[in-house]
Amino acid sequence: MKLLKDRILKDGKVINDSILKVDNFINHQLDISLFNEIGKELKKRFNDKTINKILTVETSGIAIASIVSQYFDNVPVLFAKKHAGSNMDTNVFESTVHSFTKNTDYKIKVSKEYLTSKDKVLIIDDFLASGSAVIGLLDLVKQANAEAVGVGIVIEKYFQGGRKLIENQNVKLESLAVIEGFKNGEVIFKK
Amino acid sequence: MKLLKDRILKDGKVINDSILKVDNFINHQLDISLFNEIGKELKKRFNDKTINKILTVETSGIAIASIVSQYFDNVPVLFAKKHAGSNMDTNVFESTVHSFTKNTDYKIKVSKEYLTSKDKVLIIDDFLASGSAVIGLLDLVKQANAEAVGVGIVIEKYFQGGRKLIENQNVKLESLAVIEGFKNGEVIFKK
Repeated sequence: MKLLKDRILKDGKVINDSILKVDNFINHQLDISLFNEIGKELKKRFNDKTINKILTVETSGIAIASIVSQYFDNVPVLFAKKHAGSNMDTNVFESTVHSFTKNTDYKIKVSKEYLTSKDKVLIIDDFLASGSAVIGLLDLVKQANAEAVGVGIVIEKYFQGGRKLIENQNVKLESLAVIEGFKNGEVIFKK
Repeated sequence: MKLLKDRILKDGKVINDSILKVDNFINHQLDISLFNEIGKELKKRFNDKTINKILTVETSGIAIASIVSQYFDNVPVLFAKKHAGSNMDTNVFESTVHSFTKNTDYKIKVSKEYLTSKDKVLIIDDFLASGSAVIGLLDLVKQANAEAVGVGIVIEKYFQGGRKLIENQNVKLESLAVIEGFKNGEVIFKK
């Protein structure tokens, strides 16, 4: 997606050999016009699929998933909670995600009430890196006996290997900007 | 806002004398059609104002703020971070918020890069209770020498007193459903 790639080149900041900071438009300040273009593009790529729920994980996936939903008939968005408060039901599906950036494990949870065997789920996230978060979301979908129809990613860091893990599960993966690597502080997109 | 109040009566769950759970459509599973109606209504209520940024706080405010932005010319949405990761700039405005539910303090942060003296800010949040979170957001706006144009809230728990704190700062406050209290597990709206 050219608009997105151009924006990454313009406003993304390569922090080290694995971290790209997109705080300016995706992770802290949010460019809602861009998110609408992302929604249109993901609709094109999953146009052949029946989808009745979008699943993401807090925090950065939530805004994108919410705008994207508008291009899929406003299907409900469910976000898995990382920081479940005292209000959270105990009646949950739960999975463990490993963060390579922070080298820690954390739990993600969704209420069993909102993810069921009737759901045909599109998973949305801002980044795909090692794939651990998406694999955790796919695990929640499996626990619910729901169907994972596809995975839509805004920025894929191809060199961190997550794609393989998802494709091994026979789930359609679409990433709108695929990064091959960083070179001298510059983003190199995959051809 | 009748649609919202009806939904609260239908799907909200009164947990105790201060907590209303709206996980079904606002806090965990998100009703994007409803959020669009909320956006339209907030646009009506702040139609006379010039707004060039929406400020909210993670997590539950993000999706609502993002949809609401579409009714204000897609102005950028900035969300204050509670769980700032290693990626977060140290160049931040910071404020302390007290959570009465959990009886703890937490910090909220925004990058100085994205909140500046040029900003005319609409603050959006899902709930107004004691007002501590909104007061924290107003404090960030002040630190940036930006202008707080208004506060738009989905559900106000009037009996917890937050309204007074905000009105004391001479900021326009609009809440779409104002709850006077809970009685025998039922929600009583303010007339």
